[in-house]
Amino acid sequence: MQTRTAVAAPVLPVARTALTPLGMDTVRIDGGFWGQRQDLNGAVMIPHCLHWEHEVGWVGNFSALLEGRLAEDRRGREFSDSDVYKLLEAMAWEIGRSGSPALQETFDGIVALVAACQQPDGYLNTQFGNAGQRPRYSDFEMGHELYSTGHLVQAAVARLRTGFGLEDRLVAVALRAADHVCEVFGADGLERVCGHPEIEVALAELYRATGEERYLDQAHLFLERRGRGTLRDIEFGRAYFQDDVPLREADAFRGHAVRALYLAAAAVDAGVELDDGGLVDAIERQYRRTLARRTYLTGGMGSHHQDEAFGQDFELPPDRAYCETCAGVGSVMVAWRLLLARGDLRYADVIERALYNVVAASPAEDGRAFFYTNTLHQRSAGTPLPSDEPSPRASGAGRAAWFEVSCCPTNVSRTLAQLGTYVATRSADGVQLLQFVPGTVSAELGAGRRVTLEVTTAYPHDGHVRIEVVEAPPGPWELTVRIPHWADGASVDLNDGRGPQPASAPAFVHRGSLAAGTVVDVAIPLVPRWVYPDERIDAVRGCVALERGPLVLCAESLDQPGGVDVAGLEVDPSGPVAGADGTVVAAGWHVDLPGEPDPYRGAPRRRARERADVHFVPYYSWGNRGPSTMRIWVPVGHD
Amino acid sequence: MQTRTAVAAPVLPVARTALTPLGMDTVRIDGGFWGQRQDLNGAVMIPHCLHWEHEVGWVGNFSALLEGRLAEDRRGREFSDSDVYKLLEAMAWEIGRSGSPALQETFDGIVALVAACQQPDGYLNTQFGNAGQRPRYSDFEMGHELYSTGHLVQAAVARLRTGFGLEDRLVAVALRAADHVCEVFGADGLERVCGHPEIEVALAELYRATGEERYLDQAHLFLERRGRGTLRDIEFGRAYFQDDVPLREADAFRGHAVRALYLAAAAVDAGVELDDGGLVDAIERQYRRTLARRTYLTGGMGSHHQDEAFGQDFELPPDRAYCETCAGVGSVMVAWRLLLARGDLRYADVIERALYNVVAASPAEDGRAFFYTNTLHQRSAGTPLPSDEPSPRASGAGRAAWFEVSCCPTNVSRTLAQLGTYVATRSADGVQLLQFVPGTVSAELGAGRRVTLEVTTAYPHDGHVRIEVVEAPPGPWELTVRIPHWADGASVDLNDGRGPQPASAPAFVHRGSLAAGTVVDVAIPLVPRWVYPDERIDAVRGCVALERGPLVLCAESLDQPGGVDVAGLEVDPSGPVAGADGTVVAAGWHVDLPGEPDPYRGAPRRRARERADVHFVPYYSWGNRGPSTMRIWVPVGHD
Repeated sequence: MQTRTAVAAPVLPVARTALTPLGMDTVRIDGGFWGQRQDLNGAVMIPHCLHWEHEVGWVGNFSALLEGRLAEDRRGREFSDSDVYKLLEAMAWEIGRSGSPALQETFDGIVALVAACQQPDGYLNTQFGNAGQRPRYSDFEMGHELYSTGHLVQAAVARLRTGFGLEDRLVAVALRAADHVCEVFGADGLERVCGHPEIEVALAELYRATGEERYLDQAHLFLERRGRGTLRDIEFGRAYFQDDVPLREADAFRGHAVRALYLAAAAVDAGVELDDGGLVDAIERQYRRTLARRTYLTGGMGSHHQDEAFGQDFELPPDRAYCETCAGVGSVMVAWRLLLARGDLRYADVIERALYNVVAASPAEDGRAFFYTNTLHQRSAGTPLPSDEPSPRASGAGRAAWFEVSCCPTNVSRTLAQLGTYVATRSADGVQLLQFVPGTVSAELGAGRRVTLEVTTAYPHDGHVRIEVVEAPPGPWELTVRIPHWADGASVDLNDGRGPQPASAPAFVHRGSLAAGTVVDVAIPLVPRWVYPDERIDAVRGCVALERGPLVLCAESLDQPGGVDVAGLEVDPSGPVAGADGTVVAAGWHVDLPGEPDPYRGAPRRRARERADVHFVPYYSWGNRGPSTMRIWVPVGHD
Repeated sequence: MQTRTAVAAPVLPVARTALTPLGMDTVRIDGGFWGQRQDLNGAVMIPHCLHWEHEVGWVGNFSALLEGRLAEDRRGREFSDSDVYKLLEAMAWEIGRSGSPALQETFDGIVALVAACQQPDGYLNTQFGNAGQRPRYSDFEMGHELYSTGHLVQAAVARLRTGFGLEDRLVAVALRAADHVCEVFGADGLERVCGHPEIEVALAELYRATGEERYLDQAHLFLERRGRGTLRDIEFGRAYFQDDVPLREADAFRGHAVRALYLAAAAVDAGVELDDGGLVDAIERQYRRTLARRTYLTGGMGSHHQDEAFGQDFELPPDRAYCETCAGVGSVMVAWRLLLARGDLRYADVIERALYNVVAASPAEDGRAFFYTNTLHQRSAGTPLPSDEPSPRASGAGRAAWFEVSCCPTNVSRTLAQLGTYVATRSADGVQLLQFVPGTVSAELGAGRRVTLEVTTAYPHDGHVRIEVVEAPPGPWELTVRIPHWADGASVDLNDGRGPQPASAPAFVHRGSLAAGTVVDVAIPLVPRWVYPDERIDAVRGCVALERGPLVLCAESLDQPGGVDVAGLEVDPSGPVAGADGTVVAAGWHVDLPGEPDPYRGAPRRRARERADVHFVPYYSWGNRGPSTMRIWVPVGHD
């Protein structure tokens, strides 16, 4: 076994894909919206998660295992190991990004503890199979054993992709764990699947990182076994874990959203590597249908609190939006893989939407609290959450420091750490700039033909993106710049004397010999715009939302004149919209809220109203200034 | 101890109330909408529930206890005993109603089994406290021990009210269980409450049935202890079991709907008996606010699937309506107690709505399947449920024969069996006819002054109610007939030559000397009418619903021309509405449903549509003809 060429990216297909990822090593983000968040991740979020994973005993479970205390002392839910691994993954990417020796030392300490817990045959779990615990693999529905192993493997992949080899201690542990999985669940082994997909996407990438085909085969086996009812029917149905219908036969994503998305990501990986275009087609069809019918304006997914699940088509209540942060991450995972496989830059629009309006919405400004769910409508202001204890609730009016089920903070953290990889791709002929962040993109087009771009922008606050070609190969090459679908009136100026040229979605493509020193100015108008929902989304009938650039805006009570509850707002989309960055002000009304209404009446009753401005702020920023009510979709009023 | 005068009614205040219940013994329902359902209950539903409670082992748990097999063999959830008791209560009322000796024999058999399981100190539970089980009272949050005891006590009250005395075996068992509760949880005992209220309402009524004040005191203790955080905080918060705020200080019902309603019912009982008008006021205020802001058009309560809970104000999504059948029963319980206490006949409107549109909607036409949740909008037709296994799901597109959590079928059954008691009340001066059912109402006004009415009506299919006075006291007395709030143009003809006189909500009241032989004809127009929702109910903005009399109507796909999915319907409330009983046809449109839409767009897109009739049927009847889609609230269209 040997490691493959390391590109510092979480997804790195072996088979030929339309586009090829660039690593964090060749894409540097320098400040700006995402750079600030990457820095906050390194400085605050990762230490915050570390603190809590010690505090709530999830790291301590490994010590308890070593000391034989697990049966009495184990803490956390059955999947708590996975959060330790997800944090290790975040740390691994962050070490790769920042090279922090202090972080490496902390990392090594946890890895040593984890490694010591691995059983001789590679099995490693603090919830099952140790003295006084239930036996291994005795609860496929809810045990999360393979799920946890998957996150261990993903952390190891991060090491392999950031300069470490097979001798890295975490890598060695993960390989033994993966080999154990192949042993137990191989073609001649147990014909079972894990209730929570994750091992599949992890094994596929481990194959990519090591070249060992048995990992890909095992991922494929798990994928093909799914949907055949080997998991028990539960209250939420087998759709909860996508075990209701075989992978290729489904129409849309359904059931638990994170499960569905992790599974789909793995299916694209397997389809790509096994040259199974039909499988990729199936997932693309399902994902497109999901985007068209089961996705919130924010890019968030999941309408059901009960089972953290997709609803039926057009069942998208804003006030009961679940939109788990992890599902936002999962959607980025799927969109990214389809983008690479198919070269369709519209998936970068999808990624942008989920990043700005789900992933960025989750953490508080200070990086010390998180939304687990991301509602589109907060009806009551709630009370501030304590910062010194984990919340038992996934949903709430405010962000929580930690959760009893705390998958989301570490998922945000690992995504932020690896964010550079989603900025651009390369092909044999050129570079595709997908996300607008200040920094440097450098890509080897093959045969020593290197392109390096220096990007300067204050996006998404400003729509000007300055791209300086600082290194270019001789002869023609292709510069592709994504143009978002909402960017009416975008233009690109090559500073060749012709002036700005109109550019439209999905991309501006220039084929030619742009030389080093060339500056390309991209102008993306960030005019606030009203958005109208499909009439079948019953829950927002008669409402509109306001967007600016990639940002969904929201009306938060704190910004309204008089601090009025958002239940009393209506907007006038035919009226003026003023303001640009920060607060955007639209024409509308304040509506009277009667005390005890008769809610159902024989004639429509129009409440008294008066003209008033309605103030909007970026959705990702809401909830950072104390209790408030908030809504994205606002009813259209009339005098 | 001695039993009090038996009136065959589940609620019989000792303290003076505005109105006094009549028993099933003096109110006879002869056929019609509810009489047919009472007969179906006796002939089919009770045997159906008996079959299933044996089949799933809930009755068998008592045998297992006797045989020392519980630790290994116990089946069902922690509250399964309560369903055996609720079925015993249904049987007790049904025995009182029908006098069936066969049912009495079956009843005796189960009671003998239950009685044999009671421990010497009165404790009785198959989930706790027996060999190999967790200790008694070790899980107040979810253990349901006192809840189960409460249902045992309610079954015993049914016996005491239907001609049986303290020597009745079930009564004896329940008294010992109640005494045990007073012993353990009395003023000097454990200061705890049960996670699921029920013991309170049961003990209050046991006091009423026996005159033993310690039961009332104990109910009062439990009520006053609540809302003080003795129950653990859980994912859903302490509001889930109403332990967040003391009873008198809350603004509205919140948390788990059935819990909230059972608790409120008990609070009214205690307030009445302890002459604590402030407590009754508090519950009335909370209930009114709940009716104004947290209640569906059907009278159903509970918007959250996750915790079976009330949502926030105006959070009433029709497609995610939970509207648990048991919450409909609970709302009837609260409204009935407030009606008695306050004499406000508008609560009979509330009861009527919940009975016709929740309680009657739950059972299938054949009485062999039930809705647990009662959605107002079914988006996908689903697949038929098997009739030979319990459903793990509370919600679904179809009714299920039985549920793993099966509180609802037995709750429907006991409510149907005791339904006669909700038809009329008496006061010192007269009789109040509250619900329009064919049959006989006989009331003793005191001092031997008896009124007997013979009612003939095909309500709710027809609005004519013929009331014949067949027995009347000498001198003046008062005949009160409820007029529903929606009954525009109602009239009453005393056949005294004056012709029909207009009558309006909440009641027609005649004070005078109506002699035996007088016929009073009440005419309640049952013209279909459009209903408009409060603008704050975001989920149904731009929609209307159709009602006829007390019946909420719905559009079911099976009735639409071409069987179109209800997602493609719009109505024209300015257009004609035809039909009366059965199907009602309104003007509207069929709207095109595009394949893969872009769900969020920069301009409103009107789908292609064509004029078409929209067919409505009574909501209670939906889902009886195979898979279908259904909606109550239909968007208002325009050409």
